[in-house]
Amino acid sequence: MSGPVADLGLIGLAVMGQNIILNMADHGYTIAAFNRTVAKVDRFLENEAKGKSIVGAHSIEEFVSKLKKPRRVMLLVQAGKAVDDYIETLIPLLESGDIIIDGGNSHFPDSNRRTQYCASKGLRFVGSGVSGGEEGARYGPSLMPGGNEEAWPYLKDIFQAIAAKSDGEACCDWVGDEGAGHYVKMVHNGIEYGDMQLICEAYDIMKRGLGMSSKEMGDVFAKWNNGVLDSFLVEITRDILYFNDDDGTPLVEKILDKAGQKGTGKWTAVNALDLGQPVTLIAEAVLARCLSAIKDERTKASQVLEYVGRSNKFEGNREEFLDDLEQALYASKIISYAQGFMLMQEAAKEYGWKLNKPSIALMWRGGCIIRSVFLKDITSAYRNNPDLENLLFDDFFNKAIHKAQPGWRDAVAKAALLGIPAPAFSTALSWFDGYRTKDLPANLLQAQRDYFGAHTFRVKPEAATEKYPVDKDIHVNWTGRGGNVSASTYQA
Amino acid sequence: MSGPVADLGLIGLAVMGQNIILNMADHGYTIAAFNRTVAKVDRFLENEAKGKSIVGAHSIEEFVSKLKKPRRVMLLVQAGKAVDDYIETLIPLLESGDIIIDGGNSHFPDSNRRTQYCASKGLRFVGSGVSGGEEGARYGPSLMPGGNEEAWPYLKDIFQAIAAKSDGEACCDWVGDEGAGHYVKMVHNGIEYGDMQLICEAYDIMKRGLGMSSKEMGDVFAKWNNGVLDSFLVEITRDILYFNDDDGTPLVEKILDKAGQKGTGKWTAVNALDLGQPVTLIAEAVLARCLSAIKDERTKASQVLEYVGRSNKFEGNREEFLDDLEQALYASKIISYAQGFMLMQEAAKEYGWKLNKPSIALMWRGGCIIRSVFLKDITSAYRNNPDLENLLFDDFFNKAIHKAQPGWRDAVAKAALLGIPAPAFSTALSWFDGYRTKDLPANLLQAQRDYFGAHTFRVKPEAATEKYPVDKDIHVNWTGRGGNVSASTYQA
Repeated sequence: MSGPVADLGLIGLAVMGQNIILNMADHGYTIAAFNRTVAKVDRFLENEAKGKSIVGAHSIEEFVSKLKKPRRVMLLVQAGKAVDDYIETLIPLLESGDIIIDGGNSHFPDSNRRTQYCASKGLRFVGSGVSGGEEGARYGPSLMPGGNEEAWPYLKDIFQAIAAKSDGEACCDWVGDEGAGHYVKMVHNGIEYGDMQLICEAYDIMKRGLGMSSKEMGDVFAKWNNGVLDSFLVEITRDILYFNDDDGTPLVEKILDKAGQKGTGKWTAVNALDLGQPVTLIAEAVLARCLSAIKDERTKASQVLEYVGRSNKFEGNREEFLDDLEQALYASKIISYAQGFMLMQEAAKEYGWKLNKPSIALMWRGGCIIRSVFLKDITSAYRNNPDLENLLFDDFFNKAIHKAQPGWRDAVAKAALLGIPAPAFSTALSWFDGYRTKDLPANLLQAQRDYFGAHTFRVKPEAATEKYPVDKDIHVNWTGRGGNVSASTYQA
Repeated sequence: MSGPVADLGLIGLAVMGQNIILNMADHGYTIAAFNRTVAKVDRFLENEAKGKSIVGAHSIEEFVSKLKKPRRVMLLVQAGKAVDDYIETLIPLLESGDIIIDGGNSHFPDSNRRTQYCASKGLRFVGSGVSGGEEGARYGPSLMPGGNEEAWPYLKDIFQAIAAKSDGEACCDWVGDEGAGHYVKMVHNGIEYGDMQLICEAYDIMKRGLGMSSKEMGDVFAKWNNGVLDSFLVEITRDILYFNDDDGTPLVEKILDKAGQKGTGKWTAVNALDLGQPVTLIAEAVLARCLSAIKDERTKASQVLEYVGRSNKFEGNREEFLDDLEQALYASKIISYAQGFMLMQEAAKEYGWKLNKPSIALMWRGGCIIRSVFLKDITSAYRNNPDLENLLFDDFFNKAIHKAQPGWRDAVAKAALLGIPAPAFSTALSWFDGYRTKDLPANLLQAQRDYFGAHTFRVKPEAATEKYPVDKDIHVNWTGRGGNVSASTYQA
C-alpha cells in the first residue's frame, strides 16, 4: 500500500505501541507504524502485524506521506525529551490542522506547554492518559485525552472504538483543555496508590492482628469481591493470596516488602500541596511506600523498638471484625475518591480547564487498574448532579459513609491499640471527622500565630462585634506587655 | 563618621532589619544601614538608632564605602527578585573575598544558586535562616547560616554575639554548604507546623471529647509546661486559653478557624516527597491547614455528615486520660523531630552537604518558635553520637517512646471512636508502628504491581532459593494463563 492510506500513524513500537496499533487495526482502521530503530518496524510487520491493516515506514517522511489528512500522529515514546524531539521533527512535515497525540506518561505541565506550542505552529496537540497496561492497550484501555479540543472530532471514533467498554459505554471521553488528560491520568495513578495501600493495610491487620493464613485472607478478599469492594485490585489480591510457590507455601510471603515510588503518585501529592488541597490519603500512600523502602533501617528499628500497650491481642468476634474491616476499607476508599475529585475540581479552577467529571468516573470504570463497581456509583453520582460539590453530598455515598462509620472507627482504633500501622485508614477517618466539623481547632492555631508573630486573625461571623467586625484583620496584645510586637518571655 | 567604619552593613530597614541592627549595635558593633527608600534611613537614624553605633548611607556606593574589609553586607529584603537585584547591584561595588549574607526567608535552591553564582564572581555568599520574629531579632534570634564556609570566620563573632543563648551557648553555628542554612530553617518551619497541629489536636480532644472549659484546658497546658512538654508553644497556648475578651469569655473561641499555608511548611512536605522521605507528620499538618481553609464547605458538610459510632461519649477517668494525652503529644513530637532529622540527613546526602546535627538542635534550642527543653535532649542525643542514625535509637528517646506508647495508643483510639480528628497523632503512631516493623505489607503491593504490570519483585533474603536468588528481578505468571504479560480477566 502506498499513498495516504492510513487513518492514524503511531510512532514507538514498544509493547504498548504495538498493542494499540493491533487494537486499532482490529477495529477496522488502517495504521501506519514507525520506530526510530527501523528494524523494529520490519520485525513488527513480519510478525504481529502480518495480514492486518498496518503499514510500515522506514523514514519519518515516508511515515507522514502515508497519512490521510488531517494527519493524526500518535507518539508512544518515553516521556520527556523524546516527545519534544518528535514534535520538532514533525512540525516541518505536517500542515495546519494536523494532530499530534502524546500517549505516554507525560507530566501535565509538559502537555500544557506542548498544547500551546503546537497551536502556535498551527497544529493540534492532544495529551492522552492511557491506562490498563499491555493487555489493556491490546484489548481495551482506559483513554483520557485532553488538549486542543478541535482535535477531538477527528479522534473520537477511533479512540472510543478501541477503549474498554463498561455497560456498553466507552471508557474514553474528552477530558478537558491542555494538560487535563495527563492530569486526570496522574490523579488516577495517585488513587491507585491509595487503593493499593488500603488493601495492604487490611491484609496486615488480618495477618498480624488476627493471625490469619494466606488462604483465609484470600477467602476474605474473594468474599469482598462480591460486595461493595468488587474491583480489579481486590480480585487480584485474592489470586495473589491463593498463589502458592512450588513448595506449597504462599509466594506473597516471600516477596521483599520494599515498594518504589518516584512517579505519578508523588506528582499527585505535590500538586495537592501546591493547590492547597487536603488530599491526605494519596499523600500517606506515597509516604508509606517511602517508609517501606528503608527496610534496613526498619530491620534495625524492629530490634530496639518494641510494642507496648494495654491490649496486646485481638479480642472480640473475628467475623464481626472482618465486616468492620470491609467497611473501613470501603469508607476510606470513598474518602480517597472524594479527595481526588476535590483536587481535580480545584485544578480545573486553577488552570482554567473545563473538566467533565461524569466522564472521568466513566473512563476509570473499565480498562484501568482502579476499575471497579464502585466507579459505577461515582459515575451515577456525577451524572445525577454534574455540579456536585463533593462526593459525600451525594445520597448514595452519604448513606454509605454513615453506614460504614461504626466499623471503620473500630478498625482504626483496634489497629492503633494492637500496634498495626494503618496510616491510610487513619488519615481517611481523621479527614472525614475534620471535614464534617464546622469549628476545627485552627482557631487556636491562628491565636498562636498572632501571639508570636502578630500575624493577625479574623473572628467567626457569629462572634462579630463592633470591636471585632467580620473580615477585619485583628491583632491582640496577648501578653498585656504593651507594644504591637507580640512575643513571650519564654526561656527554655 | 565617614570612611570604612562599619563592621557590617545591612540593607532593608523593615522591622526585622532595624531590630537586627539595634541588636548588633548593642553588642558593640558599628553597623551601616541602607534602604531603597532613603527617607527610611533618616527616620531610623533620628529615632531608634539615635546615639548608637549606627551609620546611615544615602546611596549604595556610600553604603559600601563605609564598610571595613572584607566587607560584610547583610540583606533583609523580600525573598525572591529583590535579593537577586541587590546581588547584581553589589557585585561591581565589592571586591574578591567580600561577603553577602541573605537573612530573608529564601527557598534553599535559590541559596544554592546564589552561593555558586557569587563564588564565580569571587564573592562569598551566606544564606542564613533567622527565626524568632521581631522580638527575637531585637534581643536574640536563632540564626542558621550556611553557604560559603570561608565566610564563617568573619561572621562567627557577630552572629554568635547577637543570637539567643541557651545554657550560655549561642543558638547559632555554621550549618553547612550552599543553601543548607535556609534548608534547615525550612525544616524548622515545617516542624513548627507540626508542633502547632499537635497542640490543636490535644485542645480539640479536651474541648469536644472531654467537654472541658478554656480555663480547665489552660490549667492542663500550664501543667504540661512544667514537664516534658515545657516549650514556648505550650506556654503561649496556656496564655491564650486564659485570655478572656472584654465580655469575660475566652477570646480564642471567637477566632475564625481558617489557617493559611503557602510557605515553608509546604516546601518541607514537597521536599520530603522529592527526596522520598516519609515525613508524614509535617505533611498532615500542612494538609490539616488546607482542610481548615475550606470552612464554607465544612459548614455545609457538618449539616449532612453526622457522627455514627458505638461509643458516643468519653468513658473512663479524665485525669488518667489527660496523662495519656500528654504522652500522645510527647510521643508524636518525638516522631516529628525524628522525621525532620531523617529528612535533613537525606538532604545532606542528596545535595552533598556536610550538616552539623548537634548544632542544628542547639540552634533551635532558643530564640525560635519551637524552642523547648525537648531540644536540649535532642542536642544531647546528637552530641553523644553525631552519627546517630535515628533519634529513636538514642537511649533517652528510646525509653521515652516506650513509656509513652500505652497512653498514646489509647488517645489515638479514643479520638477515632469519639469522632475527633487527630491526623497528626494518628500518623505519628502509624509511622512508629511501621518504622518498628521488619516486614511491612508492601510485599503484597509488589505482588500486585507484578500481577498487573509485570513490574517484577525481589524476594526476602531469608526466602531466597536457587530459583529465586536475592537481588534478582522476578516476574511470575500469577494467572497461570501463559505469556509474559500479566493481567486479569476482571470486568467491572
